[in-house]
Amino acid sequence: MIKNNYTQGDIENMKTRFRTNFINSLSGFKSANLIGTANETGLTNLAVFSSVVHIGANPALLGFISRPHSTPRHTLENILATKYFTINSIAADFIAQAHQTSARYQISEFEATGLTAEYRDGFFAPFVQEAVIKIGLSLADIIDISLNDTKLVIGKIECLYLPENIILADGNIDLEAAETVTISSLDTYHRTQKIARFPYAKP
Amino acid sequence: MIKNNYTQGDIENMKTRFRTNFINSLSGFKSANLIGTANETGLTNLAVFSSVVHIGANPALLGFISRPHSTPRHTLENILATKYFTINSIAADFIAQAHQTSARYQISEFEATGLTAEYRDGFFAPFVQEAVIKIGLSLADIIDISLNDTKLVIGKIECLYLPENIILADGNIDLEAAETVTISSLDTYHRTQKIARFPYAKP
Repeated sequence: MIKNNYTQGDIENMKTRFRTNFINSLSGFKSANLIGTANETGLTNLAVFSSVVHIGANPALLGFISRPHSTPRHTLENILATKYFTINSIAADFIAQAHQTSARYQISEFEATGLTAEYRDGFFAPFVQEAVIKIGLSLADIIDISLNDTKLVIGKIECLYLPENIILADGNIDLEAAETVTISSLDTYHRTQKIARFPYAKP
Repeated sequence: MIKNNYTQGDIENMKTRFRTNFINSLSGFKSANLIGTANETGLTNLAVFSSVVHIGANPALLGFISRPHSTPRHTLENILATKYFTINSIAADFIAQAHQTSARYQISEFEATGLTAEYRDGFFAPFVQEAVIKIGLSLADIIDISLNDTKLVIGKIECLYLPENIILADGNIDLEAAETVTISSLDTYHRTQKIARFPYAKP
């Protein structure tokens, strides 16, 4: 018998790890980025995030969801302390290193994973040299999501670095040319293959 | 000469349409979902969203970004009025119809695009029959993002429908088996191909 109807009670009764994987799969494919920060003494931190989301184009704003502050969250702490962070696209050739940043290191994840911290034009937070698209942001707002004690962290784009040849004439960026990957659930990485691009829809 | 450094001023000086495409590309690949609602008289609405994001697994919460309320936003208005909505995964075989829901129709997008409204188990909002993963949510919170007058709309999962055979033993959902697509920028649809799945990372 195929059971394909889940109620709220069914979800609550799932084992924790199963539910975490299951619910994390439901939103669909996710963006794959590394967020780079440093604390006030310059100690760097790097962490994989699949929740980076477009907030607005003018002003240019990106956001991400930060989990509860109950355990140490170096990314959030560093952003609160220094006001700057970077978002760096994950490409297929370093997914293993990118994923490994999710381990709880006592040292910098740059040092632990072999990814390279890069400083450009005096921007405070470290970029990931291996990334194709590198975005420097200043903290614009932190919004509490009281429902589950998470936060929406929003940054304003201050600067960005990417190869000119992946920018199409109309401004779209060819993410496949950048070898950018996408994440499903918490741990699965995928390449993409373009199917179609549609014009602005009219009735 | 390859220019690969963009400042805040460069972004502000871009032409509007170019900037919209460009900034919408920066976060990486996005989730591809249709949000179904109905108004108080039962008139249905369906709209493509690429901003659905995981908020938490326990309680099971999903969110999405709603643009400013200055022009009619039927999705947001219906959710405010009725407190219910559905999130339906977009599969490769109906991307053209899904994208077409972004046109400004005076009639229901179900009627206009030929996608099928489906009601299940008395849930108020319409599901998309053609979708493989269908999620019914109740409004849990609407959070103002004052920076650009957008809103983070958060729903609690009340019920969901998906084929049992795409759920892996550990709870991960095989989105490729569901033919789920991903979106880049505002208008480009992609299939995916799994590269790797990694274990829980430890130092």
